[in-house]
Amino acid sequence: MASNIPHSYGLLLFPGFEVLDAAGPIEVLNILSKYLSHSEMNLSVIAETVDDLVTPGPFAPGDENSKQFTGQQLYQPTHSFATAPKDLDVLIIPGGRGVNRTDEELKPLLSFLRHCYHGTDGRKPLQYIFSICTGSALLARTGILDGQTATTNKKAWDRVTPLGPKTHWVAKARWVESNGRVWTASGVTAGIDGMAALVGSVYGEETAERVCEFIEHVRVKEAGDDPFAEVNGCRDVLPVE
Amino acid sequence: MASNIPHSYGLLLFPGFEVLDAAGPIEVLNILSKYLSHSEMNLSVIAETVDDLVTPGPFAPGDENSKQFTGQQLYQPTHSFATAPKDLDVLIIPGGRGVNRTDEELKPLLSFLRHCYHGTDGRKPLQYIFSICTGSALLARTGILDGQTATTNKKAWDRVTPLGPKTHWVAKARWVESNGRVWTASGVTAGIDGMAALVGSVYGEETAERVCEFIEHVRVKEAGDDPFAEVNGCRDVLPVE
Repeated sequence: MASNIPHSYGLLLFPGFEVLDAAGPIEVLNILSKYLSHSEMNLSVIAETVDDLVTPGPFAPGDENSKQFTGQQLYQPTHSFATAPKDLDVLIIPGGRGVNRTDEELKPLLSFLRHCYHGTDGRKPLQYIFSICTGSALLARTGILDGQTATTNKKAWDRVTPLGPKTHWVAKARWVESNGRVWTASGVTAGIDGMAALVGSVYGEETAERVCEFIEHVRVKEAGDDPFAEVNGCRDVLPVE
Repeated sequence: MASNIPHSYGLLLFPGFEVLDAAGPIEVLNILSKYLSHSEMNLSVIAETVDDLVTPGPFAPGDENSKQFTGQQLYQPTHSFATAPKDLDVLIIPGGRGVNRTDEELKPLLSFLRHCYHGTDGRKPLQYIFSICTGSALLARTGILDGQTATTNKKAWDRVTPLGPKTHWVAKARWVESNGRVWTASGVTAGIDGMAALVGSVYGEETAERVCEFIEHVRVKEAGDDPFAEVNGCRDVLPVE
């Protein structure tokens, strides 16, 4: 087991987030919490404001043409960017159509990510930042992925990788761990495997196996075991400098 | 493609539901809805009342000892049992610790399920009822599984199967389709594969494949392809009469 066990987990929500990007890792952590005493894990569900319920994707906010199915899924955040705990250890960042907003629209969110990661604005630096799917596009736009290795959903490869020109984007990856702190999982269900790997590295492989067996998840155990790079013809993208 | 395409989907929520039981099938349907025109699918998120936010498991309601991690995940239902659409085509029923409540506590929920399935109380009968994990325990307690084949989470095998003594419980099953209408998926992530199979049977296999590729899900395509029965030493349970 790692010497430095995280206690304070955060899940970032925004309009147009992908449901399973968030729920996969949270399920892994919910089951993990069964095996720990009640004081060891705390979750904050964080959005720009707690005044609005958050509606997930796959459709971008304002995409009226396609709201009928997805618009009725409603999540209540517990904390705003302003009230989120200052001592988060882990922050989980889903992808989804909501990552496609402009820099101006995303300014508060990107600023929040930078402060959490770097430990500025009176915060403790995150122990782990963990993105799923196109959540890596948000990390890329903060500069957090500069000089790191990372991955993303292979269907979004050509759209996301240019956002991180100083990043080595690894195509054949179910997830990538970089620098000990920066974890990026590939598309949607890869978040389950990536979080299981993080749980394994922190709490031991036996615990990760126990969690996956409980949720009857046929786990991908190797970070490089990813068929979707080839399916989509994706190749590594190297940093430009 | 099936001749009778469902339009009105419902997701049942209750305190102590399992997050990924619900989110897996909903993710599949969210992506499916991308490929259909906006008028073809409608989702209602249904709970006993819309006045309370619903908190998922893995801990049962009132299990104060373990609320710290999970208690802050909050879902806002859109409909109560009283206001839910009368013409639901599909109803999705997650499992989780909340299924372990008494018959008295679950009376409104079990009554709602019976009315939806049988088309009583002014309702149209469901085209498909779809449970995940220990959601099958709820179906068993309504009598809907009498004379049917079904499955459930293998970790809960000895607890759930006695609730349906007139059911043939299939141990080595990722999911079971019975009577054309009754679908029961095995533990948690099996809900993704089960819903992909239902989508395949309704909208065609090509569409199901397209959805799974988008969410980078390494799909289990055969209903009988389930390693967890053996892992947990589960055997089929035949109806007692």
